Amino acid sequence: MRIFIKIEYDGTNYCGWQIQPNGISVQQKIENAVLLLTGENVSVVGSGRTDSGVHALGQVAHFDTESNIPPSRFSSALNQFLPDDIKVMESYQVDSDMHARFSAKHKTYQYRIYISKHPRPLMDRYSARVEFPLDISAMQKASQKFVGKHDFACFLASGSEVKDTVREIYFSKVEKIGEEILFTVCGNGFLYNMVRIMAGTLVKVGAGKLSPDDIDQILISGDRKKAGITMQAQGLTLVSVDYE
Amino acid sequence: MRIFIKIEYDGTNYCGWQIQPNGISVQQKIENAVLLLTGENVSVVGSGRTDSGVHALGQVAHFDTESNIPPSRFSSALNQFLPDDIKVMESYQVDSDMHARFSAKHKTYQYRIYISKHPRPLMDRYSARVEFPLDISAMQKASQKFVGKHDFACFLASGSEVKDTVREIYFSKVEKIGEEILFTVCGNGFLYNMVRIMAGTLVKVGAGKLSPDDIDQILISGDRKKAGITMQAQGLTLVSVDYE
Repeated sequence: MRIFIKIEYDGTNYCGWQIQPNGISVQQKIENAVLLLTGENVSVVGSGRTDSGVHALGQVAHFDTESNIPPSRFSSALNQFLPDDIKVMESYQVDSDMHARFSAKHKTYQYRIYISKHPRPLMDRYSARVEFPLDISAMQKASQKFVGKHDFACFLASGSEVKDTVREIYFSKVEKIGEEILFTVCGNGFLYNMVRIMAGTLVKVGAGKLSPDDIDQILISGDRKKAGITMQAQGLTLVSVDYE
Repeated sequence: MRIFIKIEYDGTNYCGWQIQPNGISVQQKIENAVLLLTGENVSVVGSGRTDSGVHALGQVAHFDTESNIPPSRFSSALNQFLPDDIKVMESYQVDSDMHARFSAKHKTYQYRIYISKHPRPLMDRYSARVEFPLDISAMQKASQKFVGKHDFACFLASGSEVKDTVREIYFSKVEKIGEEILFTVCGNGFLYNMVRIMAGTLVKVGAGKLSPDDIDQILISGDRKKAGITMQAQGLTLVSVDYE
């Protein structure tokens, strides 16, 4: 049977989701937990990669098993073999044609920013620091420019060899919650580093170095150099992956 | 001159504020930073101890220095010699009769709780998990019972040899913010483990095993066994220390 699992992880100590020759990945830790639990050497297929240091509230992955553990029990059972910074929140059986990556309809990411002269130990793990004030209202206007179907070539990490850079953004917002500025974005897919470059571009708008209307031109230009910097990994969290 | 510093720290990797024979303390890290910065072997005197694993948003400490570094510059200067999980947020000169511990008028602590069947990697560092539902309204009523001048002997870690267990609580509240239940309490002083036992008692109320009115009796009884458990250290944060 095919099992879907929803995983929360603190990415600080991992080289990212995907198994790498050097470094410990979240995927490897989960495949190892399945092996210890069921004795099966399975591939755990994620909805997509997350980079080194990126967190997840709701990464989704699947694997096939011949074990007779009830599907809903996999979460607690796997958690016994997982480290404190990776835990399965939910597990359930799906049809064998469901695929964590190819059946995903949309994904939601959140990027967290805080403003401080000094690095803040209680914020730094999950939020990126900016040292200067930000105009949140301008960032909110700019965030709306991402909504819709666009060629996001300008928000793609340079060096990437992806051909099709058109993606559709369903939802994009900036809000101030407590001491943090949260950028939340939902789309049918994201290019490599896309959310972190979007966040860097919003910071550039917030700092007054771009106007919200400049985003239209940046999108049309397809020029990576016109967008903002790639913000640090630790501010990014994969919030959820949605299926039909 | 005497310098006051306001310190934020993630207590996860420390044996607490105070220098211990075994384990690395926050105090030791700061004394070491002063030594590296000024060449002086100083005592850094905190407003009080925090236990192993307890965090601080606003611990306050003082030290005396003959350095000619401008007082407000100590924060950035010390931060160069401090690890990522300890940073000084503010530094300023005070009169030489001001004392981080003896001049403190009140302290505010916060205890964070989340409810989940599974441990949550993105919550566990700063919040304590409870597996069962909690009646927040009952917890709010119970939290009001702490306000005022009481003998808090029942909220003192057993084995402690403190004589005077009377403390005054100025402010005590329970609120739900996002996915967390936050208990915030301000008083003129706190006994060893007092906030963590108060939090455990509020959880017992939230679980329906005590009524808010039972708190009055527990306070009068002075009996540690009638109060709730000592909640885990990682949920506790010293928010601020106030001076005249």
